[in-house]
Amino acid sequence: MPKINRYVDISTVDREAKKDYIDRHSPFISCESTAKAGESFPVTVRVGNEYTHPDDFDHFIRNVALYNNETLLAEATFAAGTLGGQGQKGHAETTFHITQSGKKLKLTAIAYCTKHGLWECEPVDVTVE
Amino acid sequence: MPKINRYVDISTVDREAKKDYIDRHSPFISCESTAKAGESFPVTVRVGNEYTHPDDFDHFIRNVALYNNETLLAEATFAAGTLGGQGQKGHAETTFHITQSGKKLKLTAIAYCTKHGLWECEPVDVTVE
Amino acid sequence: MPKINRYVDISTVDREAKKDYIDRHSPFISCESTAKAGESFPVTVRVGNEYTHPDDFDHFIRNVALYNNETLLAEATFAAGTLGGQGQKGHAETTFHITQSGKKLKLTAIAYCTKHGLWECEPVDVTVE
Amino acid sequence: MPKINRYVDISTVDREAKKDYIDRHSPFISCESTAKAGESFPVTVRVGNEYTHPDDFDHFIRNVALYNNETLLAEATFAAGTLGGQGQKGHAETTFHITQSGKKLKLTAIAYCTKHGLWECEPVDVTVE
Repeated sequence: MPKINRYVDISTVDREAKKDYIDRHSPFISCESTAKAGESFPVTVRVGNEYTHPDDFDHFIRNVALYNNETLLAEATFAAGTLGGQGQKGHAETTFHITQSGKKLKLTAIAYCTKHGLWECEPVDVTVE
Repeated sequence: MPKINRYVDISTVDREAKKDYIDRHSPFISCESTAKAGESFPVTVRVGNEYTHPDDFDHFIRNVALYNNETLLAEATFAAGTLGGQGQKGHAETTFHITQSGKKLKLTAIAYCTKHGLWECEPVDVTVE
Repeated sequence: MPKINRYVDISTVDREAKKDYIDRHSPFISCESTAKAGESFPVTVRVGNEYTHPDDFDHFIRNVALYNNETLLAEATFAAGTLGGQGQKGHAETTFHITQSGKKLKLTAIAYCTKHGLWECEPVDVTVE
Repeated sequence: MPKINRYVDISTVDREAKKDYIDRHSPFISCESTAKAGESFPVTVRVGNEYTHPDDFDHFIRNVALYNNETLLAEATFAAGTLGGQGQKGHAETTFHITQSGKKLKLTAIAYCTKHGLWECEPVDVTVE
């Protein structure tokens, strides 16, 4: 029953270490709020907004999955070392291009850290016109 | 925020269609209750216990992930057609071999259906001696 | 022994159908020719340069893997429907961000079509300064 | 252009270190030579026949893919640590269950080591009756 950690607005968190822990593990989706039906729509998922994550062999961001509601759209998997390797830190980041014909999307991303498990962002609503 | 469906004991469910729906999507773990430290330990994950799942191009079991607590151990990904293909039904099934040195394992499996999303089993406890 | 198809410059190919077949399955890497050591470096992999690929349930681009020499850096996996779905066509496209400290990269991408197998591009050399 | 290493019969190899290197990276398929159409058919892929492979964080067998001719049937991905972890060695091993309706299968497996890249076995022919 792997726990899925959910992002908490870190401005509401007091302890610096906890802000860092939450932020560096959480996936953040950036995309326009409106997509055109039938046109390629870029969606960027980046892990960590203000804080970077280690890229050590035994502790790295292994994958990020992008869902629309319950449906998996795409997943990116990373090797340790993609963010600079042992002793370095960074943001795992991928831009997917999706083309949709529905009326709206509810996008969510789930990231997986090899030490601290699954992390999920708040859903992002996109209108498709 | 893809919902993760959790297995419900289908003997407590009245409607046949609902029994079928729950059972055919749920991963079931089978393994011994005790593993020997440092020895290869087979863990089988099978999707559906009494009911089979379609293997259509637009509706199939795409992957099964095996976790120990929050840690991903292994994942199997299937192409549509692995269970007989269009119009056929079956059980997605994989046996992983894991070697552990800890004191105990809490194994969970999560299966993903391309139409009905994520499904999780009850955790299975294994003692490592 | 799955054959790995290799890109052939389609300007040397006569038949339109063959140009289309080769181009729409081949991954194309775009990135700068020089990366800065320790800085995030975007690498875009797009399948098909001039021609688009179907996105049908039984025929779609399932994944794209990015290698540096023999080492896997990252992989993106797509569901059928990410490019518009049944009857639609498009370019599977992902931008990875990699941070490297070596002296140079030799990047290659391999794409997998569920009907026509594995396709590989010419390696792309990147100097890391 | 990641090189794909191909298995060489190690009885033809003189140097012990080379036998070990080749064997411990090569996937070996075991299954019956005949499958029944429409019935579940177990196929085991094990990496290393006589020699075991490290399971260190920076050096492990990350995945094994099973193909029928050019078509991917299933893939298993492992975390470092699945075979005992740092300092331990073992065989990455998975049993897939596939159901086929064709006349024959030509199965090949490709394994990926995070240090020594892609390794492929000789194809295994299966008659489907």
